[in-house]
Amino acid sequence: MAEIIDGKAIAQLVRQKLAEQVEVLKTKSIVPGLTVIIVGDDPASQIYVRNKERAAQKVGIAHQTIRLAADVTEASLLTIIKKLNQDDQVDAILVQSPLPNHLNEQLVQETISPEKDVDGFNPINIGKLYANRHEYYPVANTPKGVMTLLMAHHVPLRGKLAVVVGRSILVGKPMLSLLEAANASVALLHRYTPDDLRRSLLKQADIVIVGTGIPGLVVGDDLKSGATVIDVGINRLSDGQLVGDVDFASAQAVAGAITPVPGGVGPMTIATLLQTTVELAAQHHQIELADKWQII
Amino acid sequence: MAEIIDGKAIAQLVRQKLAEQVEVLKTKSIVPGLTVIIVGDDPASQIYVRNKERAAQKVGIAHQTIRLAADVTEASLLTIIKKLNQDDQVDAILVQSPLPNHLNEQLVQETISPEKDVDGFNPINIGKLYANRHEYYPVANTPKGVMTLLMAHHVPLRGKLAVVVGRSILVGKPMLSLLEAANASVALLHRYTPDDLRRSLLKQADIVIVGTGIPGLVVGDDLKSGATVIDVGINRLSDGQLVGDVDFASAQAVAGAITPVPGGVGPMTIATLLQTTVELAAQHHQIELADKWQII
Repeated sequence: MAEIIDGKAIAQLVRQKLAEQVEVLKTKSIVPGLTVIIVGDDPASQIYVRNKERAAQKVGIAHQTIRLAADVTEASLLTIIKKLNQDDQVDAILVQSPLPNHLNEQLVQETISPEKDVDGFNPINIGKLYANRHEYYPVANTPKGVMTLLMAHHVPLRGKLAVVVGRSILVGKPMLSLLEAANASVALLHRYTPDDLRRSLLKQADIVIVGTGIPGLVVGDDLKSGATVIDVGINRLSDGQLVGDVDFASAQAVAGAITPVPGGVGPMTIATLLQTTVELAAQHHQIELADKWQII
Repeated sequence: MAEIIDGKAIAQLVRQKLAEQVEVLKTKSIVPGLTVIIVGDDPASQIYVRNKERAAQKVGIAHQTIRLAADVTEASLLTIIKKLNQDDQVDAILVQSPLPNHLNEQLVQETISPEKDVDGFNPINIGKLYANRHEYYPVANTPKGVMTLLMAHHVPLRGKLAVVVGRSILVGKPMLSLLEAANASVALLHRYTPDDLRRSLLKQADIVIVGTGIPGLVVGDDLKSGATVIDVGINRLSDGQLVGDVDFASAQAVAGAITPVPGGVGPMTIATLLQTTVELAAQHHQIELADKWQII
């Protein structure tokens, strides 16, 4: 039976470590500042933003939420972002997705200064990650949180085969880059990958990362014995049950270690967002913090 | 026996097509302008720059070479680049590698405006490629030229397995992104990939791209029958012979199609540089040219 990778417990360790780092920054009169912009009143987004607020407060980050009407003009939104870019109290800016259709999400994201781009969505930060630059830059928090899970479980990466299923620019692609930067051999599969090719590659993989939105896409029979399996999917079934993209029961019997859904990758995302906020604040004030991806 | 992918002939077709496009631009009073900056007097670079000059002239591109002394200061070099960024006659800027050690190559490359970054080395252009943005941006010319070779030979990519050996930001990584954007399933291998894993993945690959600088790294036995093999390596052996990273004789017996060295990828790089120059000029003047990667 696979070891369970407990995202909740590891996220708790991350938050503890962050609270300590925030204390150190306070002795230098620095309070990391995160500003979240939310447009409209999508209930799921409202809950998510409130959770971010509460989590930020707990570790001592100054959190500000800017709530805008659903019909805000693009020009007004961009003006607000540009002011935040200039605001010395703001270290990190996040615009909550999804945005109403009349707003160009790409343009909105790119207006955020790369130095305050806490989601790591700006192409310049994506490019630096892909090039594996030896400098600090923000990286998308979900895959960055997955790296923390792998590090916390001391999963060997160098030379190993990591197969990433799903190629979104929020999860799959930055995940691939982070694994490659850790010297794993990497493969990226997606909707056009035939089933037999996906299965054959998964069977060889030491590390499997799945983020597709397809419940149960990966089953135990697909896996190599002892593989580490990270399930980024969160799907709500018609009976209300929350499941991942991996069939947990069958996978657990074959894998060496596996994340549950819920309680695996999910809890890491907000903790890692706070981590990136603290890192951006430290960067902004030119203070050396812990190594990249080595929060715990 | 594998079909030979004749880079010289395909580069010739590209140049013909470019000469036609340049004619069309001239009817609108536009002459694409490429400026190459060369620092010092490295003989190999001098030859390479002269070849670029001659090739540019032949297709009707206005070519300018700026020759700087080996001891030019970084500040002077950056000032020259900034002036070129502002110069409306200059559509494309290239700084010839390698630079003397006292110059920060990364900083120099990033000072080139992303809109004139004919090598596609600026992180913002790398990020756009990785994100597969639906807009025009320059891409590193060697992997872009490889895509032209694959297109010219109608090599199926969608759903196929493409294995890229070598992860440089000039070749391997943009190659991976271009193949993935064409809906291939992709794997990236490198110096930390164990031999047995490399061989096992190569054996499954429909498309193999090798750019490592290791002569004969890939041999016929490594390949799947009928695979398309693209050899980006150029190595000079002690006896003066030029060879690639693939053992041509044994690979040719197994592959379906293969590039020779010399005469495969090599001739495409300058032709593709000129292609990117014309594309940047068209982009600059907001003129619609051919589809991305579809020059011939």
